[in-house]
Amino acid sequence: MAGMVFFSVSMSLDGFIAPESSDELMGQQWMELQRWIFPTRFFRENLTLGRGGEEGRDNDIVRQTHLRTGASVMGKRMFDAGERMWPEEAPFHTPVFVVTHEKRDPWERPGDTTFHFVNDGMVTALDRAREAAGDRDVRVAGGGETILAYLNAGLIDEFTIALSPVLFGSGIRLFEGVDARRLALTPVRAEPTQRVTHLTYAVRERVGQASMASRAQA
Amino acid sequence: MAGMVFFSVSMSLDGFIAPESSDELMGQQWMELQRWIFPTRFFRENLTLGRGGEEGRDNDIVRQTHLRTGASVMGKRMFDAGERMWPEEAPFHTPVFVVTHEKRDPWERPGDTTFHFVNDGMVTALDRAREAAGDRDVRVAGGGETILAYLNAGLIDEFTIALSPVLFGSGIRLFEGVDARRLALTPVRAEPTQRVTHLTYAVRERVGQASMASRAQA
Repeated sequence: MAGMVFFSVSMSLDGFIAPESSDELMGQQWMELQRWIFPTRFFRENLTLGRGGEEGRDNDIVRQTHLRTGASVMGKRMFDAGERMWPEEAPFHTPVFVVTHEKRDPWERPGDTTFHFVNDGMVTALDRAREAAGDRDVRVAGGGETILAYLNAGLIDEFTIALSPVLFGSGIRLFEGVDARRLALTPVRAEPTQRVTHLTYAVRERVGQASMASRAQA
Repeated sequence: MAGMVFFSVSMSLDGFIAPESSDELMGQQWMELQRWIFPTRFFRENLTLGRGGEEGRDNDIVRQTHLRTGASVMGKRMFDAGERMWPEEAPFHTPVFVVTHEKRDPWERPGDTTFHFVNDGMVTALDRAREAAGDRDVRVAGGGETILAYLNAGLIDEFTIALSPVLFGSGIRLFEGVDARRLALTPVRAEPTQRVTHLTYAVRERVGQASMASRAQA
């Protein structure tokens, strides 16, 4: 059985996933957005920030998201930022397909992460990720524009938002430019933890609208 | 003991509380936003839409929100729309303070709703509502601009959002223009029901920022 295509992000209550500027306040809000994940044991150890950390439901959820992922897709900007930031043992431990115009040989990292650079578009990148993932799921890792492109193309089956108790007021909105005429949501799961509310939705096509699959091919 | 000042609204996952246009799609999304509340017994009977309706947690939550409210505050536009739409027995059954420049005598409706028209500002309207509410809470009923004005003035203690599984893409955003530099949130309660997730947050002042109360008086 083929896996699902999903994304999973942290979002402020007013809909932002990242600051636009890097001033002090946005830094503070950014920390508040991520406060649920930074202290978790799995996150810390996977990014080699140190041994140990918090256990509990948030930690379980981070680990489960990692374990369900058989391959990831990401945009070039996320890769560029990550290339500078990730530890040598990159935190994916699976194939990662980077949608880019840059021609580059696969880049193997210790710990079984291999980055593949895909030059013929997001649909091809996803096809290759699906094949690499086998029974497991494909995660569209980011950034925001890449997630939205897959969402609007009807290629996301499900997504999870860790809704954080913080207001940004400005920044990069997850759903800016979403094709609300095409997409309908079904709640799958909602689980409050101490710090955030984990919300999972299935994406389906609005009844009576033109096929999203045919648009993705256009 | 004095009550709290709160608001309670339905919000789309992408942060909208109302459509901007009245075209067909927005009508459909608007219905989806409100789908959790329209069929509930309390909502139907309170708006005299008919006897009976759905019981259960959503219905309990609508009823509890009504029962905690000892007085409401609203903006002129919400009142104007409501004056045309509400049944003769208006659905508040408490004093309601309308922030307006219009001079008008109190308007008593059957069923103990009395609308008072307050000409000297939002703080006075709230003071009068607090006094009228006694031990019960004051609800800032709407519309969006009025809610945001009270929120940014630091006059909201707590709010509840019924987060609906729908994307609007455009419309009127609840938090457009929110003073994120002043406001911090603490999660109070998160309760998923079959149709929505009810999220309650307490509002507090960001540490190290100038007093919100002093701004409200400025």
